[in-house]
Amino acid sequence: MKKFKIGIINVTGYAGLELARLLIQHPQVELTSVTGRSAAGKKLNAVFPHLADSNLIIETELDDVDFAFSAMPHMESATVILPLLEKGLKVVDISADFRLKDAIEYSKWYNRTHPSPQILKQTVYGLPELHRYQIVDARLVANPGCYSTSAILALAPVMVKGLIGNYAIIDSKSGVSGAGRTLSLKTHFAEVNEDVAAYALEGHRHLPEIIQELNLLKSEKSLSITFVPHLIPITRGILTTCYAPLIGRTATDKKGAAMIKQIYSDFYKDEPFVKVTSSPPHTKHTLGSNLCLVYPTIDTRTGRLIVISCIDNLFKGAAGQAIQNMNLMLGLPETTGLEALAVYP
Amino acid sequence: MKKFKIGIINVTGYAGLELARLLIQHPQVELTSVTGRSAAGKKLNAVFPHLADSNLIIETELDDVDFAFSAMPHMESATVILPLLEKGLKVVDISADFRLKDAIEYSKWYNRTHPSPQILKQTVYGLPELHRYQIVDARLVANPGCYSTSAILALAPVMVKGLIGNYAIIDSKSGVSGAGRTLSLKTHFAEVNEDVAAYALEGHRHLPEIIQELNLLKSEKSLSITFVPHLIPITRGILTTCYAPLIGRTATDKKGAAMIKQIYSDFYKDEPFVKVTSSPPHTKHTLGSNLCLVYPTIDTRTGRLIVISCIDNLFKGAAGQAIQNMNLMLGLPETTGLEALAVYP
Amino acid sequence: MKKFKIGIINVTGYAGLELARLLIQHPQVELTSVTGRSAAGKKLNAVFPHLADSNLIIETELDDVDFAFSAMPHMESATVILPLLEKGLKVVDISADFRLKDAIEYSKWYNRTHPSPQILKQTVYGLPELHRYQIVDARLVANPGCYSTSAILALAPVMVKGLIGNYAIIDSKSGVSGAGRTLSLKTHFAEVNEDVAAYALEGHRHLPEIIQELNLLKSEKSLSITFVPHLIPITRGILTTCYAPLIGRTATDKKGAAMIKQIYSDFYKDEPFVKVTSSPPHTKHTLGSNLCLVYPTIDTRTGRLIVISCIDNLFKGAAGQAIQNMNLMLGLPETTGLEALAVYP
Amino acid sequence: MKKFKIGIINVTGYAGLELARLLIQHPQVELTSVTGRSAAGKKLNAVFPHLADSNLIIETELDDVDFAFSAMPHMESATVILPLLEKGLKVVDISADFRLKDAIEYSKWYNRTHPSPQILKQTVYGLPELHRYQIVDARLVANPGCYSTSAILALAPVMVKGLIGNYAIIDSKSGVSGAGRTLSLKTHFAEVNEDVAAYALEGHRHLPEIIQELNLLKSEKSLSITFVPHLIPITRGILTTCYAPLIGRTATDKKGAAMIKQIYSDFYKDEPFVKVTSSPPHTKHTLGSNLCLVYPTIDTRTGRLIVISCIDNLFKGAAGQAIQNMNLMLGLPETTGLEALAVYP
Repeated sequence: MKKFKIGIINVTGYAGLELARLLIQHPQVELTSVTGRSAAGKKLNAVFPHLADSNLIIETELDDVDFAFSAMPHMESATVILPLLEKGLKVVDISADFRLKDAIEYSKWYNRTHPSPQILKQTVYGLPELHRYQIVDARLVANPGCYSTSAILALAPVMVKGLIGNYAIIDSKSGVSGAGRTLSLKTHFAEVNEDVAAYALEGHRHLPEIIQELNLLKSEKSLSITFVPHLIPITRGILTTCYAPLIGRTATDKKGAAMIKQIYSDFYKDEPFVKVTSSPPHTKHTLGSNLCLVYPTIDTRTGRLIVISCIDNLFKGAAGQAIQNMNLMLGLPETTGLEALAVYP
Repeated sequence: MKKFKIGIINVTGYAGLELARLLIQHPQVELTSVTGRSAAGKKLNAVFPHLADSNLIIETELDDVDFAFSAMPHMESATVILPLLEKGLKVVDISADFRLKDAIEYSKWYNRTHPSPQILKQTVYGLPELHRYQIVDARLVANPGCYSTSAILALAPVMVKGLIGNYAIIDSKSGVSGAGRTLSLKTHFAEVNEDVAAYALEGHRHLPEIIQELNLLKSEKSLSITFVPHLIPITRGILTTCYAPLIGRTATDKKGAAMIKQIYSDFYKDEPFVKVTSSPPHTKHTLGSNLCLVYPTIDTRTGRLIVISCIDNLFKGAAGQAIQNMNLMLGLPETTGLEALAVYP
Repeated sequence: MKKFKIGIINVTGYAGLELARLLIQHPQVELTSVTGRSAAGKKLNAVFPHLADSNLIIETELDDVDFAFSAMPHMESATVILPLLEKGLKVVDISADFRLKDAIEYSKWYNRTHPSPQILKQTVYGLPELHRYQIVDARLVANPGCYSTSAILALAPVMVKGLIGNYAIIDSKSGVSGAGRTLSLKTHFAEVNEDVAAYALEGHRHLPEIIQELNLLKSEKSLSITFVPHLIPITRGILTTCYAPLIGRTATDKKGAAMIKQIYSDFYKDEPFVKVTSSPPHTKHTLGSNLCLVYPTIDTRTGRLIVISCIDNLFKGAAGQAIQNMNLMLGLPETTGLEALAVYP
Repeated sequence: MKKFKIGIINVTGYAGLELARLLIQHPQVELTSVTGRSAAGKKLNAVFPHLADSNLIIETELDDVDFAFSAMPHMESATVILPLLEKGLKVVDISADFRLKDAIEYSKWYNRTHPSPQILKQTVYGLPELHRYQIVDARLVANPGCYSTSAILALAPVMVKGLIGNYAIIDSKSGVSGAGRTLSLKTHFAEVNEDVAAYALEGHRHLPEIIQELNLLKSEKSLSITFVPHLIPITRGILTTCYAPLIGRTATDKKGAAMIKQIYSDFYKDEPFVKVTSSPPHTKHTLGSNLCLVYPTIDTRTGRLIVISCIDNLFKGAAGQAIQNMNLMLGLPETTGLEALAVYP
């Protein structure tokens, strides 16, 4: 069988590298072209020894491929993607450039006018659990943010059922690889190790994605969401703890908790990569895998819903999900190349 | 000047050890007696080389001292403290046995009848920022839990001002030393490292302390609190993120945030160990110090209050605060022996 | 094609778990039976959520299988393996019970008489790079220790060539998972985190393996080896730094270093899992993979040979190598199920 | 009593910051002036919240002080120190500029001509355990490198006694703060966490210091030293493992080990900051303290000497030792301001 030829634009960041690692091991596609600015001209496995047997050279321009991923920083990604779309290529964009449907919202959060607002409409937000059928037919898929993935998957089932009241608090704890490979004091080892801190309290850019997607799932748009991300000293992993009031006649005792758990199990019963757990999940159980673990429960003292989700931010939170989208777009079985079990301990 | 002779019951846990470390360096008291079961008969500095010059022997029974700390596990602490009180000693209890004023509440959370409910009334909850004058005169001070310290100090100013509405979400991230020196799979290195998880979702024992103390600060007792602790791979440090609705006419823009910050600055202006910060605090800035850093702000999109606090769980969250209490009880300057600056980086 | 049915005795330790993780993903065998004492009767994926889709029940006795791994602790492993061999099963033993050829040496290092010295002769030391052809025909393979694997692969090429003098210093740095899943203060998070220490200075049990195997490679047995292991706060990974005098007319300048590198490249040129690197290797580049990275060089100031090797101690240092041995013993391609690229970063 | 006024040139690196932290807490001196380029004009405690009560402003030029520390990078330090010496100030230089007595050696290792070779002769290498009396009278003290401190203190006793043969292998494991606060991929969290690697195999700049100082202690200069530093994922701490052949009639059994231990105990018996331990030391037992722990033993199988030492690289390995030198130079008790016990766990 002929394998699809795949390209990665900007392979040298952590998301690009994880794409490369997974695509090299993917049985039905072939990674044939990778680009990168800093390391252009070098062999991929010389710069990144973990990609041991790859003989690819890092190029400045993408070769002829059947399908492309852009792992460029936002703002720049749109620029490189438009010509690819014009050539008829299907593309998954890892950046944030096409995630928000509303160009005004984009300009508010990214401080610049969107370069191609006309494309936003036809772009699909690449969360297969919510938009699988549109992804299958899409030419451009905007891969969700890592925090957004964990938060939306945590709250989608109760949003759809209309079970939560007017607010949600989303408290996320993320590993440091989410901040990328670019140097900064906040990712300097001696600063991050043995430390934890919140950041982006003035508003993190994954928040409008979360709002957009959750609001699609309910009739009225009155949900008031507070989202606070925290940086903790692990390399990979996001744990998101969500708090929301339950409305309606939901029992708030153990029976209610069991009922909520059933709602989640039903919602995700056919999903290959979302598992509802029976005890609070650990990020370690997702490291190196495409799994999202979700644990819903009720604080029986207050009747409040608590949902905890966790993912590997570079896998289900970035490259793994991107390949899940690619599989759908290329007509391959959705789980192909994504079956790796988590590397525990 | 004659130094007070101080004893520690159960020096071999992390709280007991931190007490020893601080008392050995305290200029106005002398650590003269330490007890411990497992290591009885051994020299303190042979078992714990960081206490380099201590020549104390770990005993099974406390010697004659002027003042005692009990670092026994709860349930056992009450038993060893009662005879000391009868001998006229002043005591700080690191355990949870005397923190709750209500013996029924105690039996609910600790699954046993309190052995000396009559003493609960005269015991003072040892948070100097709230109960300084009672601590000065107390014979028995119940040292607050580590999570409780971070949560109560985070919310006290707005509670006193009556500024928050009917709920508070308290999401804490703790280092592993808080789980003590007793072996368990959940504190096994390979399980905790590169991991984060929530625990005690059915209700953590520090919650009733938090409720008790916050309710003391407001007129009506309708506050619905959800508290979820998380374990992260650091040794020392707790970061607590609190979320609550603001009520009344509080502005929810940047001016409102500045006003809230002023309320906190005023509330803590004479406190030697609480600092209101102008950016989100890092646990690393409290490691090895008695500081609690507090950062209040407003999520201006939703008008919700966010307060972040951090402490070193073994210092301000345990041994440092215990010594702060001892200083007050012995008539010493409150900060004596507690001036160490945080060990950053 | 019919898949071989595989069993794991004592699946609940880290080596057993890693075997399970890899065998579940192995395309040509099926894990059909796992045993474990503590968790007997439970579902494997309930106790270990990272093994998400496994429906195996942890049993007390091994079912009927075609091939077995024993991940029992040494001393107990021999006891469970002997009946399996009698039944005609092929077995890989992860423990140390059959690694030493000399029963007297065994009794010296393990403080007991070997229960079946007659079997030692026919057992093969399972380092495929040295004993591939014997492994193919073996009924019982003793899987090497993790430190031994890193040290022997680091020094084998120069031993074979007779290039090193009368001594070798082997300084290893190991992640904590090597100490297993059994609780101990030395693997308690708060003790190991932010710490490094040497241990087993009186003699580590992997040393006689190293001596046995290196001595097989040279004519005279005069090599004096000092081996010191260190524990560092990582979960997976061993880095071993070897120092030895070069003898003969080896140039000790950059040309000599290039020559030494060539010797290593030649020696390992057909090895799928040993790569000679051109800069000092990082354990991170082997995490979750079966790779051993080896970097030989010369300290040109002193003319001394330095060789650095690294592996994932649970993978090439335990379960991965065990499966490599199984593949050989079952006539499968050696790399089957072991192609995973390292999970970097 | 009037306190000495102290200045720090370049306070914003980790060594400069640790100096500030310790000097602020020093009872007999006052930190009155700090300089720094990047943060000039800002308040010290605004940039570094752990220095909670300091009101110093970071300046571009040093104020009038009684004593100065230079924490400038090497190459630049000499330039700023010369004018201070001319003004009559006493100075401790944290950089490497004045550590090597031999200007030719300096130019070989630092690739430039030394700017003031005439001063090298009168500079004292600031290891109080070896040069206490010269430090007392010195105007310029070159503070030793962190690796050098650990290695020299590990080997000095046997060098003085002439007990080791013709070689020494020095294998060091260092925390990441030793690489400073300057950003680099090799100190980027996601690269260093869960990793260990050797570096500087072509020759680390602390090696000529080690050679210089060890050679001062023995009659013949034939010692061939190999030194390999490794980076491990801890913030603070260096553990150095030294290997060397014992010569003469030293017994190589347990009695020999006891004799060697006695030699170390005698050598360091009056040293306030060097402790000979009875089991392999942990860096954690030195974190935040000025202690160097030394553990000598004999590999009785080979008769080889093994000595392990550990320090906090920013404390005894940099700022603490610098203040120890300052105390000596100012006629203060040597341990003043340096009594802090290690922050364990």
